Amino acid sequence: MNEVKVLAPATVSNVVCGFDCLGFALAEPCDEMTIRRSKEQVVRIINHDDYGLPTDPTKNVAGVALNALIAAAGLDHGFEVEITKNIKPGSGIGSSAASACGAVVAANRLLDDRFSKTELVEFAMAGETLASGSRHADNLAPCIYGGFTLVRSTEPLDIVSIDFPPLCATVIHPQIEIKTSEARSILPKEVPLKEAIRNWSNLGSLVAALAQGDYGLLARSMEDTIVEPVRKSLIPKFDEVKAASLAAGAFGGGISGSGPSVFMLSESESIAESVEAAMRYVYNPTGIPYNTYVSIIHSEGVRFV
Amino acid sequence: MNEVKVLAPATVSNVVCGFDCLGFALAEPCDEMTIRRSKEQVVRIINHDDYGLPTDPTKNVAGVALNALIAAAGLDHGFEVEITKNIKPGSGIGSSAASACGAVVAANRLLDDRFSKTELVEFAMAGETLASGSRHADNLAPCIYGGFTLVRSTEPLDIVSIDFPPLCATVIHPQIEIKTSEARSILPKEVPLKEAIRNWSNLGSLVAALAQGDYGLLARSMEDTIVEPVRKSLIPKFDEVKAASLAAGAFGGGISGSGPSVFMLSESESIAESVEAAMRYVYNPTGIPYNTYVSIIHSEGVRFV
Repeated sequence: MNEVKVLAPATVSNVVCGFDCLGFALAEPCDEMTIRRSKEQVVRIINHDDYGLPTDPTKNVAGVALNALIAAAGLDHGFEVEITKNIKPGSGIGSSAASACGAVVAANRLLDDRFSKTELVEFAMAGETLASGSRHADNLAPCIYGGFTLVRSTEPLDIVSIDFPPLCATVIHPQIEIKTSEARSILPKEVPLKEAIRNWSNLGSLVAALAQGDYGLLARSMEDTIVEPVRKSLIPKFDEVKAASLAAGAFGGGISGSGPSVFMLSESESIAESVEAAMRYVYNPTGIPYNTYVSIIHSEGVRFV
Repeated sequence: MNEVKVLAPATVSNVVCGFDCLGFALAEPCDEMTIRRSKEQVVRIINHDDYGLPTDPTKNVAGVALNALIAAAGLDHGFEVEITKNIKPGSGIGSSAASACGAVVAANRLLDDRFSKTELVEFAMAGETLASGSRHADNLAPCIYGGFTLVRSTEPLDIVSIDFPPLCATVIHPQIEIKTSEARSILPKEVPLKEAIRNWSNLGSLVAALAQGDYGLLARSMEDTIVEPVRKSLIPKFDEVKAASLAAGAFGGGISGSGPSVFMLSESESIAESVEAAMRYVYNPTGIPYNTYVSIIHSEGVRFV
């Protein structure tokens, strides 16, 4: 086998009260990636899109991730990667994570799956660190493990897969730019103990609700009184989108990653589509260009074609 | 039926990273309680122990809890309660919760179980508020539901039962007094967001570990960098007890309630007994009187005799 094609899915991180730890994988949108062995010990990136992403492997997240894998494996050869990005960079649904994860999962298949999923997340994290400037695995973990994942720790990396019932996500991506530095700078440095307790009580309940398939508890647990109140100001019509989504039947939701995308979770695709219509109804009058996506939460991450 | 006898078990709250929300029920020690209908619309308390607890029902947690139940039920009669306390007041393993829960569960049986478990926790919370000065259900929830419980919210009351694998607890109760006011006053008012994230990542993982029966993850998740570091100073030899317990095979543990009891969780009774021996080894030279208990985590709370 000298060539592998994969679909690397979008992912949602910072799932409400699971800020900086809880994420999940969508079925779509997906980046399409083809990877081949190359004789030279270098990574060659070919971008089939108009996003102007770097092809220098030391500046491209897929390249950096692959170089980490090549170094760990002690390979005497390299890889050529063709990438068709369908997940817009800067959307907040794990665009860079998809590139990094797709590349290392595909390369690992060419190496007869010698690395574990945790090791692949480690390699991808090298790429993600390039993209975000900080070591985090919130999008990488669901992109590689699929389903819902909780990153308990990044040093050492400790990823927990959480059982979950059938769920469908609706995502709206307003085409505005949120600078990661700004999204980060407005976070509180300290939080009242009382609010922290409220948040961890909700997250504990959210994990239990997912594991038990208790939709009512899931809805009640999806509350974030720490990050959402400060970050939502960066997203036009956030409160209206959320209120309309809940009215349309969503259990709850919040900011995806550090935004600008907003996600909502529902029990079925038909409700998720009603939620999509509700989001459009709120956004159409604003004149802000946007995309919407409806997707089940997929139990697989990167998939082989 | 005019008389009901119950065993009301000790409970552990503030389970490591589950501060102010996660608790579990032991099989023993238990308070023994007998409750009878009485013709007059009052509560009469008879204490069969030497703790000097009040018999005035407005000053006794069981009395206050029963009065809340009597008012909600609109009863034209009262109850007589005989209490033999085996759980020492002030031990940190839910002594007042046991009195309050035992009383309302027993009274509810005399009323053909007309109230739900959540309602019983509400009544018991009236008693607990008398004892602690604040509305919390961390010990009440496991005392009534059994097993591991997470109190997502007290207003409104939202209690989540968490599945769990076989587990055994070892508890050491050093016979020292910790004033609740002091244990509370040394808590930080604010915590760094980074530490709060670490804590909720651990709690999410702990809930997943319990639900999945993953002992390794359970051990890794039992970390508290917020409350334990400040409260452990109130408990002589806390670090030594913990280190010796881990060396003896415990997964982890921490301060029970607001202390002074310390608990450790293990996979089996034999390991829990080794942990008990390790605790004794640390405490014997101190000259501080202490009790130890070894008990499975019991899936039932208050039990009928």
